[in-house]
Amino acid sequence: MNAEELATRVRAGELRLHELERHADADVATEARRQLLTEETGANLDAVGEYTFAAADAEPNIENMIGAAQLPMGVVGPIELDGGAAEGETYLPLATTEGALVASVNRGCAAMRAADGANARVLTNAMTRAPVFRVRDVAEAAEVSAWVRENVDALAGAAEATTNHGELRDVKPYVVGDNVFVRFGYDTKDAMGMNMATIATEAACDVIEAETPAELVALSGNLCSDKKPAAINSVEGRGRTVAADVLIPHDVVEGYFKTTAEAIAEANTRKNLVGSAKAGALGFNAHAANTIAAAFLATGQDAAQVVEGSNAITTADARDDGLYASLTIASLEVGTVGGGTKLPTQAAGLDLVGVRGGGDPAGANADALAEVICTAALAGELSLLGALASNHLASAHAELGR
Amino acid sequence: MNAEELATRVRAGELRLHELERHADADVATEARRQLLTEETGANLDAVGEYTFAAADAEPNIENMIGAAQLPMGVVGPIELDGGAAEGETYLPLATTEGALVASVNRGCAAMRAADGANARVLTNAMTRAPVFRVRDVAEAAEVSAWVRENVDALAGAAEATTNHGELRDVKPYVVGDNVFVRFGYDTKDAMGMNMATIATEAACDVIEAETPAELVALSGNLCSDKKPAAINSVEGRGRTVAADVLIPHDVVEGYFKTTAEAIAEANTRKNLVGSAKAGALGFNAHAANTIAAAFLATGQDAAQVVEGSNAITTADARDDGLYASLTIASLEVGTVGGGTKLPTQAAGLDLVGVRGGGDPAGANADALAEVICTAALAGELSLLGALASNHLASAHAELGR
Amino acid sequence: MNAEELATRVRAGELRLHELERHADADVATEARRQLLTEETGANLDAVGEYTFAAADAEPNIENMIGAAQLPMGVVGPIELDGGAAEGETYLPLATTEGALVASVNRGCAAMRAADGANARVLTNAMTRAPVFRVRDVAEAAEVSAWVRENVDALAGAAEATTNHGELRDVKPYVVGDNVFVRFGYDTKDAMGMNMATIATEAACDVIEAETPAELVALSGNLCSDKKPAAINSVEGRGRTVAADVLIPHDVVEGYFKTTAEAIAEANTRKNLVGSAKAGALGFNAHAANTIAAAFLATGQDAAQVVEGSNAITTADARDDGLYASLTIASLEVGTVGGGTKLPTQAAGLDLVGVRGGGDPAGANADALAEVICTAALAGELSLLGALASNHLASAHAELGR
Amino acid sequence: MNAEELATRVRAGELRLHELERHADADVATEARRQLLTEETGANLDAVGEYTFAAADAEPNIENMIGAAQLPMGVVGPIELDGGAAEGETYLPLATTEGALVASVNRGCAAMRAADGANARVLTNAMTRAPVFRVRDVAEAAEVSAWVRENVDALAGAAEATTNHGELRDVKPYVVGDNVFVRFGYDTKDAMGMNMATIATEAACDVIEAETPAELVALSGNLCSDKKPAAINSVEGRGRTVAADVLIPHDVVEGYFKTTAEAIAEANTRKNLVGSAKAGALGFNAHAANTIAAAFLATGQDAAQVVEGSNAITTADARDDGLYASLTIASLEVGTVGGGTKLPTQAAGLDLVGVRGGGDPAGANADALAEVICTAALAGELSLLGALASNHLASAHAELGR
Repeated sequence: MNAEELATRVRAGELRLHELERHADADVATEARRQLLTEETGANLDAVGEYTFAAADAEPNIENMIGAAQLPMGVVGPIELDGGAAEGETYLPLATTEGALVASVNRGCAAMRAADGANARVLTNAMTRAPVFRVRDVAEAAEVSAWVRENVDALAGAAEATTNHGELRDVKPYVVGDNVFVRFGYDTKDAMGMNMATIATEAACDVIEAETPAELVALSGNLCSDKKPAAINSVEGRGRTVAADVLIPHDVVEGYFKTTAEAIAEANTRKNLVGSAKAGALGFNAHAANTIAAAFLATGQDAAQVVEGSNAITTADARDDGLYASLTIASLEVGTVGGGTKLPTQAAGLDLVGVRGGGDPAGANADALAEVICTAALAGELSLLGALASNHLASAHAELGR
Repeated sequence: MNAEELATRVRAGELRLHELERHADADVATEARRQLLTEETGANLDAVGEYTFAAADAEPNIENMIGAAQLPMGVVGPIELDGGAAEGETYLPLATTEGALVASVNRGCAAMRAADGANARVLTNAMTRAPVFRVRDVAEAAEVSAWVRENVDALAGAAEATTNHGELRDVKPYVVGDNVFVRFGYDTKDAMGMNMATIATEAACDVIEAETPAELVALSGNLCSDKKPAAINSVEGRGRTVAADVLIPHDVVEGYFKTTAEAIAEANTRKNLVGSAKAGALGFNAHAANTIAAAFLATGQDAAQVVEGSNAITTADARDDGLYASLTIASLEVGTVGGGTKLPTQAAGLDLVGVRGGGDPAGANADALAEVICTAALAGELSLLGALASNHLASAHAELGR
Repeated sequence: MNAEELATRVRAGELRLHELERHADADVATEARRQLLTEETGANLDAVGEYTFAAADAEPNIENMIGAAQLPMGVVGPIELDGGAAEGETYLPLATTEGALVASVNRGCAAMRAADGANARVLTNAMTRAPVFRVRDVAEAAEVSAWVRENVDALAGAAEATTNHGELRDVKPYVVGDNVFVRFGYDTKDAMGMNMATIATEAACDVIEAETPAELVALSGNLCSDKKPAAINSVEGRGRTVAADVLIPHDVVEGYFKTTAEAIAEANTRKNLVGSAKAGALGFNAHAANTIAAAFLATGQDAAQVVEGSNAITTADARDDGLYASLTIASLEVGTVGGGTKLPTQAAGLDLVGVRGGGDPAGANADALAEVICTAALAGELSLLGALASNHLASAHAELGR
Repeated sequence: MNAEELATRVRAGELRLHELERHADADVATEARRQLLTEETGANLDAVGEYTFAAADAEPNIENMIGAAQLPMGVVGPIELDGGAAEGETYLPLATTEGALVASVNRGCAAMRAADGANARVLTNAMTRAPVFRVRDVAEAAEVSAWVRENVDALAGAAEATTNHGELRDVKPYVVGDNVFVRFGYDTKDAMGMNMATIATEAACDVIEAETPAELVALSGNLCSDKKPAAINSVEGRGRTVAADVLIPHDVVEGYFKTTAEAIAEANTRKNLVGSAKAGALGFNAHAANTIAAAFLATGQDAAQVVEGSNAITTADARDDGLYASLTIASLEVGTVGGGTKLPTQAAGLDLVGVRGGGDPAGANADALAEVICTAALAGELSLLGALASNHLASAHAELGR
């Protein structure tokens, strides 16, 4: 059927909007939906229909497809970086609608280059999934917890049988009354790994249910914790815990940021440390989420995981030899295979960074991507702190001039 | 100059990558950047170059543009909703790469329709900005705080002089040692309002600096708190605080979710309430950020503000007449004018919802969008809770069958 | 009856342990309980029986009394303080079993005196109580919230009719699904005020239930939040928000703490700011709870409210003219009338500070006590930071000597 | 010298207040201080002077001693308990000034007895200390972290050489920029163990400084986290993580609490779960800190550690066979040896519970004390929830009667 015929049958009540792919190819189904929605709402959806991939190729990523959203993509770099996995000079694409973000990050990258580059390291790596089980009472909870602690090998066996790449790294039980949560942490290599972790955990849950009296209530019990702001992630990490830092000589600080290391350090302490403390925050940074979100969209990451990405701490310290600044992101969840990484524009984004597909060794590409994003986000921190501090200096100077 | 000429001059060191728009139109500059980056990195950026808007039109949103990222867009609905601003049946576009998300939210919407629709209300509305000032000591901090509390009208006068639409609603000082933070809250009508709030606050800061001994350190002191997970937002709200709920009869629960109201309520308590409590969370929901992120991308919102959107609490209660479920998002920051809302695919997305541009009365469109997103996110919560609960029931049934 | 006769009747099952005061005076009842418990458990309770007050006088504070717990009490001071309510030199008693605590705080007080004294100010003052109501749905929640915001005067009238001293300062509704929480804040003058706030709120709840469809579920809905660690208190305050600070010349720092301002500031940043940030804390201090707990026990405060007292932020900054340090306690709940303040040893403790009973104006004594405790706690912060920093310096020196 | 002579010499400036013990026995020094303070402040300190222990015996616990604070002590029980370490019927002394607390907890204990008793289990046990080290940059931070993970045995050797009883259980590094925090967790048996953990950690730090480039900044870096509200403790535990629960038949609920299991469960969900969620809490309970504080004071625990004790979650569930309720305290720090446990009234308090001194096996007494306190705190939760729910029911009934 063509789009018009599909639309006719939907209007006649013979088909439902989500069933069109059964009767036509994906692009036609998508077109028919636009027609129907335009009729119903008056919205002109032509722009949405101008997508660059075959709708069928997007099928793992979307249902009820009507087209594509387009976001402008810019680029920052080169990012000069001495990393554990990334090395040398790299570009990073950023897709955003926030004016000045790309320019701001880019300014920070330029200052870093003038400072002979940044360091970055992935510190820990574990994608987590934490089911919740019901037990009879706290006595049984203690028994099940003990069983879990003593049978990590059996759980690893079951979990790892479901995956070619994933390795179970940690298993930790937590008890609240008659609830037993078990947090599984996996090395999922170059995949972000949420699906891998879920499937592997499901197999491990079968073992727990078979061997203990615990009954599974939900495969995710929110101690994972996926796409929610949660201290367990800011403390223990999820995905990659990654840090970047740089020492910028005083003349470079002044040249690029029109302010001093002391003023930037003061702004950082009062805003990012004391202000965030007073705000009851899990994120002690200026706007790391901006860079992370833009990089996620440009490289095929999960946009909702920007939530965990924002669990980040910025430090800044004025020293004899310059401004020391660091950004540590506790839970940056990235992959270079799977998910949205196969879409044409996002695959191009990964190619631009030089990290598309599986790394060598496995995990090295995702490690490198994490380091590059963290370093770019640090550049964004420096640039915004510099702007805040120099505005202040500017007005201070204006006052003195009066 | 054409793209090739621009590229030549960059290679020759005569131009820098971010200066190309000064010498050519935006599309040509964008093309030149792709050429240069392809040469340097080997990345094929053709897909990135197939964007549907004029590069010049994206200029307020991006710098160093190389093209566009494309994300598949699906649609959910109709969402049947009795809201304070939204009314009747609405569609919502979702741009995502997470397979099954659209289908899952859509299933929840169908159950809501079978239940005669959801309710939604915007409860509070205030975009905030909170500068930090330096004072001499705690005695001066007390004086400045008192001055601020007593001079709200003067601050409002200065702040509102900068804007045609914004109204200053709240001003509240917070002291930590020799830091005074002042949190300003604005009704920014149909705009998300971060820029409006920043500009207005800058003017108010001038008054504070002129009338008190306080010295501005940073225009944002992180009590705002923008794009960071922070309790001040989950408690006090930022942007819209919006809630949606629905009562779903038992037969509808069973028909759509293949489980019972009791099982869904139990999963919600153990996962979203107790699990999140144990996780040290600010978000007590299953995956609200998924729906919020996808709706944000499809309607031109700021992707990094998904962070605050995830400050959401889901409740579920099994009652005699069915399953009562609610989702309350403390800090949903949305607009129907400004920012990314003018991009063609996002404008189409807003048209699909019927809320593009300024509302009547002002603010009504953004209110309606908040209600629709919250209701869709509730649909997503119900659907995922149903899936978690029914998997458990399924395995329970399988066991019984043995 | 005498104690032996009471004991006999309990053994015979004719009386229960908590009923003895109906048949004998309070001291005799207390003695009988000791006898019975000694028989049953073998515990020698003689020491517990050597209390200094009449058991009858303790009746508002205890049931099933068996005697008294005794804690050693020391004293720190003089505390030299320029406060909003406290002025000049003051002593503060501390009851504790933590060796070195009194000496440590006292060292800090000595350094403060050598620095010409500290400043302190009460910044806000509101004892809160927040009932939770059930409503039909979010539409009703919005209506009830609006009603509350528009009827603060009626609520104040009802609330203040229950009290001679208390004044209702703030009323704020919060909605989560079909829950409406209303946070009432009172100026309770020299009383800690939890009971006053509860009784007044109960009267206000009657008005809400009469005038709106909301039904009260619990008079405390945990947005109060009493005796639980909660961001709402660390952000918005409860009881007194109080801050103290001091500028200590470099030679005084070195003389008293055997380290430098720079080393103390570094320790504070790395430990109290960055460390607490990473820990997911609501308290960014070294050990403020130690001083607060000891002062609470010595002056008749509620020991469980040490929980809120620990919501405190310490800052330290090395400046040209010395070490600037501050402590801001968000929620210090103290009183100089009511509760445990009438017990003989605690009344003596308040006399030692010079703040027993009602102040002039009302509230001044509790304000002064808050300022004194905050300043002493700051002294404790300085002393511990100094010890941590000097240990490090000591070992650094030792290394250099090798 | 006698007290008068000491006082004379202080007045003459020949002695300072804290030096008196060098010139007289402790009781005389204490008396002299009271004389001097009475002269200076007018406070009558006679009651403070009537303490039951020899001042010299309190010397490890106090400096600048002036006497003792006395708090009324009551008793609750018998607590009927099936624990991992505690068994059978136990009494628990509570020292408090909060009227009705003892009666309330006691009512809960009675309901538990009528329900055939509660369960309790210690789930984990680790006293923590977390120093913070300075490193050059994030590359060095990664190296030091890796070294720590690979050299746990060497660290354990150094740490355990300092103690007869303690065992190092866990060592975990955390990085933020150029800070490396290392969280050490010890089994300290029957001691609360803070001192033991500190001394042992100091020895381990020497090893880290000798073997790596890390430099110790502070022996406590606030990831411990002692006496501060911090998610790391509510998530991972500190001291004992202990849980208690009970299933109370419906008739017992109604008999003791004058309400229904359903009403208690509803109050718990709306107040302790949803209300605490909205409050940004780390404690999801009604008033666990009340019972914990009172038990701590009566048994010689550290009053400031009530802060961590309040990291507790209460659940309540109405079932076919009654009300299931649980309390899980994440970080209850108790000991039966050392600290304040040797003071006469507190030693008597421990004897009353039957847990004074070292347990058999080591740790069993502190485990039992933790279980008893947790169960009593659960009794307090039930009683307060019952009171809140029955007030509501009472007014509901009154309405129906109209």
